[in-house]
Amino acid sequence: MPEFRKDPIIDRWVVIATERSRRPSDFAPPPLPPAPVSSVFSPGNEVKTPPEVFQIGRAADEPADSSGWRVRVVPNKFPALSLEGDLDSHAVGMFDVLNGVGAHEVVIEHPEAAWDMADATPQEMSDVLDAYIQRNIALAKDERFRYILTFRNAGTAAGASINHPHSQIIALPVVPKQTRDQLDVARKHYREKRRSIFGDLVRQELESGARVVESNEHFVVLCPYAARFPFEMQIFPMRQQHDFTRLSDAEKASLSEVLPRTLKRIKVGLGNPSYNMMLQTAPITHARAGLPDYWGTIEHDFCWRIDILPRLTQVAGFEWGTGVYINPVAPEEGAQFLRGVKV
Amino acid sequence: MPEFRKDPIIDRWVVIATERSRRPSDFAPPPLPPAPVSSVFSPGNEVKTPPEVFQIGRAADEPADSSGWRVRVVPNKFPALSLEGDLDSHAVGMFDVLNGVGAHEVVIEHPEAAWDMADATPQEMSDVLDAYIQRNIALAKDERFRYILTFRNAGTAAGASINHPHSQIIALPVVPKQTRDQLDVARKHYREKRRSIFGDLVRQELESGARVVESNEHFVVLCPYAARFPFEMQIFPMRQQHDFTRLSDAEKASLSEVLPRTLKRIKVGLGNPSYNMMLQTAPITHARAGLPDYWGTIEHDFCWRIDILPRLTQVAGFEWGTGVYINPVAPEEGAQFLRGVKV
Repeated sequence: MPEFRKDPIIDRWVVIATERSRRPSDFAPPPLPPAPVSSVFSPGNEVKTPPEVFQIGRAADEPADSSGWRVRVVPNKFPALSLEGDLDSHAVGMFDVLNGVGAHEVVIEHPEAAWDMADATPQEMSDVLDAYIQRNIALAKDERFRYILTFRNAGTAAGASINHPHSQIIALPVVPKQTRDQLDVARKHYREKRRSIFGDLVRQELESGARVVESNEHFVVLCPYAARFPFEMQIFPMRQQHDFTRLSDAEKASLSEVLPRTLKRIKVGLGNPSYNMMLQTAPITHARAGLPDYWGTIEHDFCWRIDILPRLTQVAGFEWGTGVYINPVAPEEGAQFLRGVKV
Repeated sequence: MPEFRKDPIIDRWVVIATERSRRPSDFAPPPLPPAPVSSVFSPGNEVKTPPEVFQIGRAADEPADSSGWRVRVVPNKFPALSLEGDLDSHAVGMFDVLNGVGAHEVVIEHPEAAWDMADATPQEMSDVLDAYIQRNIALAKDERFRYILTFRNAGTAAGASINHPHSQIIALPVVPKQTRDQLDVARKHYREKRRSIFGDLVRQELESGARVVESNEHFVVLCPYAARFPFEMQIFPMRQQHDFTRLSDAEKASLSEVLPRTLKRIKVGLGNPSYNMMLQTAPITHARAGLPDYWGTIEHDFCWRIDILPRLTQVAGFEWGTGVYINPVAPEEGAQFLRGVKV
């Protein structure tokens, strides 16, 4: 019998269609093209990107936009949003429109185009996390922005257009409805119970164990109870913290091992599929911008996390028309499989 | 300068990224495989599907599940939901779970596998609409169900698995959050203004004309102001009506010409891309099931529509992480192009 399951944080039903159950080998993504030797993001090609806004590896007295970096962050050459200009919000009849002010940056994660985050050393991963943290902190100082998403498209089925490992950071002047809805649920839970809904969820998942892929004192990796996609995973910190940039050194060291290992589970276990990875953190709390208390309470009731979505199935009319996803792999089976992958 | 635009009905921001603007010819979808001569849905293969629940074309005294039909509706052989059983809702700790009761039917739209809805005659299209209407009416009588989606996946990029023209109808025991959110917005608008938000939207679009693809006394086809995808279209009835099945004969005759012509615009203009089509209608109003007034007010404040999403771009990490879509084609440009396609 299939099951409807509701995600308590996102307030979203999914269908776990056990009768349509498929084994991991049934998904067999198309083989990836061979890794390129060099790309527009390679050392020596620094002039082909806009001037860097951050780098790790080059000494302070060496010239900017030269080689010698381990991680390099540049503005997107074809940005979806414009960094210049003041916010201009107005109405067009019944519609709302805002000019497209925002930041769109590219984190070039490694000098080698053939590098793979799934095989990253702890030091390499820690460098990338440092770049995420430093750029999130810098962009949060811009009072035009309200929300920052750090994400990664790996493989063509995930929408990657340049085949050199990179993440993207987009800062928005609005808080997306999807995020507001989660904040509303989390805040209501906290106000009623004085407990974080995320803490409740992690505790229940650890007690059950059925959907846990791995855990240690700092992080738990799990397949969510109401997963939309086969082998979807979430990484939660054990310590309730709304703001990803406040990662402790011990947490960063742990995540630098946990995250590549998690990616390696899908690489080895599922034949190197494309995937999307999203770092979900709280909206920017501009205390000084005079925003109301709503945003100030995030500290207690929101918790950052990393979402990983292997791209193995197609989104079709039923999903577009209802927002309800049909998942042919129960998360318990997904977690059991992923736990067993040799990494 | 890109623009953030908000859809007033779905309360969702999109980015219209004019700087990334692309021409219709830039999308060039991969050519479709040749149409099959016959399939599992062809006449003569009726025994390969579950017994039919509806048909048009065969005389009443001819045996069921024989050939001679023009449109045939059968239960899905691999249903996502189970038609048997009572609803059983319970909690698993903090999670909600409901057994997967629901209906999943397939509307085989034409005996010929090579038929294309974009080339349908008015009579052929009217037959398919009759099948939608009759099955929606029949399924709505089942008191376990709360919401019915009728949809169509055309082409592999849209998730179609059988290459014989068909639609699907899924009846759910829950109202999806996406639908509830729209009802909330529409109801608030109606209570405040005693006007339908859909009527306001259609009136404004007709006055502007910039996003209108075509219109007549019964229907308007438009590219929505906050379109998520290039060449996304919506078909709205001119007459405020929450329930698709209450289409008048004159409206059905008009839609039987408008809908194929709209599909033909994307077929001819965009090189026959895959697309998803969703018929959005109000949740089932079980007056007799004793549901609260909330659902009774739908009649005044919701309006059915058809959404058509050509599958030309990929959904990537930014969209998954925020629910905000980046659309490289302004809907005004999309509508202008689609208006000009020779159909």
